[in-house]
Amino acid sequence: MSSEPVMSVADARSVATLRSLALDQVQTARSGHPGMALGAAPIVHTLFSRFLVSDPDRPDWVNRDRFVLSAGHGSSLLYALLHVAGYDVALDDLRGFRQWGSKTPGHPEHGRTPGVDATTGPLGQGLANAVGMAIAETMARARLECVGGSLIDHRTFALVSDGDLMEGVALEAAALAGVLKLGRLVVYYDDNGVVIDTPAAATHSSDAVCGALRAYGWHVSAPIDGNDVEAIAAATQRAIDVTDQPSLIRVVTTIGYGSTFAGTSKIHGGALDEAEARRIKTILGEEFLEPFGPPADVREFWTSFARRGSAAHADWDKRLEAARAAQPETVAQFERWQSPEPVSDEQILRLVEPLAEPEAARFTSGRILNALCEARPELVGGAADLVAATISYLGGGGDYSAEDRSGRNIRFGVREHAMGAIANGIALHGLFRPFTSTFLVFASYQANALRMAALQGLPVIHVFTHDSITVGEDGPTHQSIEQLAMLRATPNTLVLRPGDGAEAITCWAMALSNRSGPSALIMSRSALPRLDRSRQVGDARRGGYLLRPAPDGVDPDMDIVASGSEVSLAVGAAELLAERGIVAQVLSMPSQEVFLAQPLSYRDAILAPGRPRLVVEAAHPQSLWQLAGADGEVYGISRFGASAPPDVLLREYGFTAEQVADAAERVARSRRPQASAEAAGSRG
Amino acid sequence: MSSEPVMSVADARSVATLRSLALDQVQTARSGHPGMALGAAPIVHTLFSRFLVSDPDRPDWVNRDRFVLSAGHGSSLLYALLHVAGYDVALDDLRGFRQWGSKTPGHPEHGRTPGVDATTGPLGQGLANAVGMAIAETMARARLECVGGSLIDHRTFALVSDGDLMEGVALEAAALAGVLKLGRLVVYYDDNGVVIDTPAAATHSSDAVCGALRAYGWHVSAPIDGNDVEAIAAATQRAIDVTDQPSLIRVVTTIGYGSTFAGTSKIHGGALDEAEARRIKTILGEEFLEPFGPPADVREFWTSFARRGSAAHADWDKRLEAARAAQPETVAQFERWQSPEPVSDEQILRLVEPLAEPEAARFTSGRILNALCEARPELVGGAADLVAATISYLGGGGDYSAEDRSGRNIRFGVREHAMGAIANGIALHGLFRPFTSTFLVFASYQANALRMAALQGLPVIHVFTHDSITVGEDGPTHQSIEQLAMLRATPNTLVLRPGDGAEAITCWAMALSNRSGPSALIMSRSALPRLDRSRQVGDARRGGYLLRPAPDGVDPDMDIVASGSEVSLAVGAAELLAERGIVAQVLSMPSQEVFLAQPLSYRDAILAPGRPRLVVEAAHPQSLWQLAGADGEVYGISRFGASAPPDVLLREYGFTAEQVADAAERVARSRRPQASAEAAGSRG
Repeated sequence: MSSEPVMSVADARSVATLRSLALDQVQTARSGHPGMALGAAPIVHTLFSRFLVSDPDRPDWVNRDRFVLSAGHGSSLLYALLHVAGYDVALDDLRGFRQWGSKTPGHPEHGRTPGVDATTGPLGQGLANAVGMAIAETMARARLECVGGSLIDHRTFALVSDGDLMEGVALEAAALAGVLKLGRLVVYYDDNGVVIDTPAAATHSSDAVCGALRAYGWHVSAPIDGNDVEAIAAATQRAIDVTDQPSLIRVVTTIGYGSTFAGTSKIHGGALDEAEARRIKTILGEEFLEPFGPPADVREFWTSFARRGSAAHADWDKRLEAARAAQPETVAQFERWQSPEPVSDEQILRLVEPLAEPEAARFTSGRILNALCEARPELVGGAADLVAATISYLGGGGDYSAEDRSGRNIRFGVREHAMGAIANGIALHGLFRPFTSTFLVFASYQANALRMAALQGLPVIHVFTHDSITVGEDGPTHQSIEQLAMLRATPNTLVLRPGDGAEAITCWAMALSNRSGPSALIMSRSALPRLDRSRQVGDARRGGYLLRPAPDGVDPDMDIVASGSEVSLAVGAAELLAERGIVAQVLSMPSQEVFLAQPLSYRDAILAPGRPRLVVEAAHPQSLWQLAGADGEVYGISRFGASAPPDVLLREYGFTAEQVADAAERVARSRRPQASAEAAGSRG
Repeated sequence: MSSEPVMSVADARSVATLRSLALDQVQTARSGHPGMALGAAPIVHTLFSRFLVSDPDRPDWVNRDRFVLSAGHGSSLLYALLHVAGYDVALDDLRGFRQWGSKTPGHPEHGRTPGVDATTGPLGQGLANAVGMAIAETMARARLECVGGSLIDHRTFALVSDGDLMEGVALEAAALAGVLKLGRLVVYYDDNGVVIDTPAAATHSSDAVCGALRAYGWHVSAPIDGNDVEAIAAATQRAIDVTDQPSLIRVVTTIGYGSTFAGTSKIHGGALDEAEARRIKTILGEEFLEPFGPPADVREFWTSFARRGSAAHADWDKRLEAARAAQPETVAQFERWQSPEPVSDEQILRLVEPLAEPEAARFTSGRILNALCEARPELVGGAADLVAATISYLGGGGDYSAEDRSGRNIRFGVREHAMGAIANGIALHGLFRPFTSTFLVFASYQANALRMAALQGLPVIHVFTHDSITVGEDGPTHQSIEQLAMLRATPNTLVLRPGDGAEAITCWAMALSNRSGPSALIMSRSALPRLDRSRQVGDARRGGYLLRPAPDGVDPDMDIVASGSEVSLAVGAAELLAERGIVAQVLSMPSQEVFLAQPLSYRDAILAPGRPRLVVEAAHPQSLWQLAGADGEVYGISRFGASAPPDVLLREYGFTAEQVADAAERVARSRRPQASAEAAGSRG
């Protein structure tokens, strides 16, 4: 295809400006990715100048078109675009590319730069985020039908690279997008035929992936010349006109357009030497030799973008007010989604009672979720094909599908990674509160999506059931060991592991109230007896509390700290210890992070320093050592599980009340802390 | 399609026996997955009775055809098959299905059951494993060309479910298999149209995924009736005849064949009630009502499988001896791959010298790998499109491709998860030693593959570079924080983080010597000065040692423990502390696990109890608390990174020598251990 621009003078000058500003950033920072920015500039130019509707003065306008730069290494191009399009991204911000505290980090970061709709960079995530946004749009559109049309009726655009389309998370999301017929999702494929290590063909075929998406039900365009603005525009219009399929517009670009190294991986990353940069600038036009100087006519050209967005926004405001008059309940609901308040235990307790008899946390969780369906209309989500096991279904919420966009239960399929990334997209969209569910062990399939939620502060709720070896017969492939440690080591992630039905309610209230990052609700497969909290000291809401204090007037000999299914086990152990003349207190610790964030006065009141201590969890002990502190030992599982009935496994891995009591007694009788107490027994 | 068997009496009786024995296991265990076993029995019957060549008396014969049951929940079917086919799986083993210590766990486990070629269950992994096995076969075939044909010339078969083909890891592997034209890979697709939560069509389309694989370059059969043995056989033969494409044979089966709930998700998992089981048994034949009683004629039918395999094995033994005479060097090389010895530091030092000047660990690692190319011909592997950054290339090893099977560098593409699972398949194949490489943060993309390597004890070597915030400008999406904790919490995973070039050599030697599980080599992006080890006490090979002891005759005030790039930082801090009158020793700890496994005498000699201690790592501190013990504090990073030059980040996150010295001084001056010492500074 031609590598010469096929476009009007105005378009060409804008494209040259974007290329030039992108290159200026990389050269100034002495780091970054010039290749894609130079190659893909005509794509974003065409999209933003002719199609995308957004108000740069109000980049959080909820009905704006969304744009996800899935290939986040092209950030300098996005920043250049946001600058000329009128967002609050100044030339000085571009000069600060990749510097501490700037608005222009190495990869786009949502919340840091006006106009950036998703944090991207780890490949594949952005496409799945866009699928989530497109799902959220259809859900909102269906629910917010008002006089004169729905309050939500925008499009979702994304730009993906070869690398994006190699990642499994993108393919999972693409397959689901096809089934769900997300017609307002339009994705540009920057098909430059180059990956970092090699010509892409050595490991990847553009034809193949386009064929795959076509098979998955996508409308896929013929290859478009990446320098032909009119062709890109025509393909975009056709994609918009296809309303019952997501669209992939295949744009054949030249990585590093204008460079001596154009079309090779040499231009993918890194700043260029002065002569090479100058060479490219000269091709773009002499006037671009001076860095950071967008021409006045290009600035003038782009004023129409802000005018279009601002007019659309004003028009939408009028529709909102008309709707408020005509359908006040619909508008009130819509506004309530966007400003949910913290949730108290009492609010949930009004809907769900803990049972007197033992109940698995997953079932309590299922009852809670079910009950929340009506009270929390912003909740939407589903499972990775394990609803029947995770009991995570909004009863009465209906199934979301291509035919019924009002459904609130999403059938993600066996696609854990995309589930996480799609949930992130729903959260980024800003209207709904997404939840996901699967077995805890499969958190390992979606770890990078979980991290992206945490990094962006997205309030996604993850219900992870079947924690630990009590999964039983399904065996070690299905039994979590290291996942709790992984989640607890992920910054800004609230991990909650309730010990009975009452704590499950508290944990759900905490998760619903946590709007600054994801929450992981860890729910047992096995039944948990209702804990006797008649003598409770402290509050589960503070992360940990003294469930079973020493009898009044008696000095405790030791503390046992536990979470989840091990809390009742610890109570059983304490009872055995009492028979042996050892006074053991039991602390329940549904959330380490929350407990450790309490003031020292609370922590010391609950877990006094200087007393022997055993921290028990049927999981890898790594995350227990901090709680053990100077006075304690840990009691966990440092090897993989096995296939056997749960009771057998608990015995073989040292998790009967008797075995925990034995370990606790050793701790109580030897005040000097020791090295890791590995659970007894050996793998059969 | 017909659901009535279309097959000879002998075939029908064998299929009925497999169905019956599979059901017997589930009913006896009162748990398991009857649906797929009942549905897919004709597939495995046909494959094993007519095509697959393996010697049940020597299930580890290296030139056997491989079979991976990717849909591992069909384990009862596989065990039934292994029993009738003559493997060392007795009826009593079948009676022990899913019980502690049995040969018949809930999901197939490699190494536990003769004839099980891979541990499966987490969906998608098995298909990627099979791709790895098929790659290994082509590599061996190319390298072991001898008189009378190559010593390795087997096929790789797999059976996948709808769920497998939804998983991203499977799609990544399938895309690569197409590019690599793996003609001896034959995969059956158990297309039963049902997933657990819903009819599959609600979330997945069989037509779509078949179309996708066709686009990826696979030979995909027309739909075959799952009860038509002759049709399955004909499709298998066609697939075998297609030698330049991997093949997918789409077999339309009825989940839970014979059950009232056939064709629904109700029959996917769980034992059946007595009446329902009896109903199915009656359909299979009255004689099957008695559990665990395979008919004599079926036993007789299956003797031909063992005869075929045993004859092929004997024939192969002759070829091996002929080759040994004609091409002794080739055979010696082949046998050496299979019994590699431990590697000493000295062996590597003969090939690679540590530099006097500072060198990034990734570059040292690259030099080592390069040098190992000739010395270790069993090493094969590559990167997820980051060779240029991870420096993980076997110089002179050639690029592996469809055209050149002798190449040893695999271009995995941007497919981290499949890279891990394919490497597992190469390791399972048994001839080659696979390595992979990517940035440490992307360990989160492949966490479940890493766990499967650990669970199976596979000696895969993972080179993870660009650890921590020193990634710099690329920002938080590319900076590992929680990954070291995740890896260290994964059982049976050796994590090695060298502090300079000499330690990089030791760590590589340790990784090469570790054959009982995966090793993770954590290599810095930034340059590491050569450490002064003139006064060293202890040995890096033991996981940790005293790099900088107190001067002779001087009592140390404290210890600083560090790994990787923080070791030289700790030395710098110790020098500053010396100026402040504090004698700080510095311990280098390239491997916590190895150090903690040393006898107490070694540990106490290196890290004496009762002395103030600061444990430093530019990563989440969770995995440091155990080392901190009763006497210490941790100094890590509990939040995400940021985009800025590395030096700026190190200062902002508290990782200058001055800042570490300040923290250490606080510890030295206050012997009472305190809560987590979060690094100074705040996110800008």
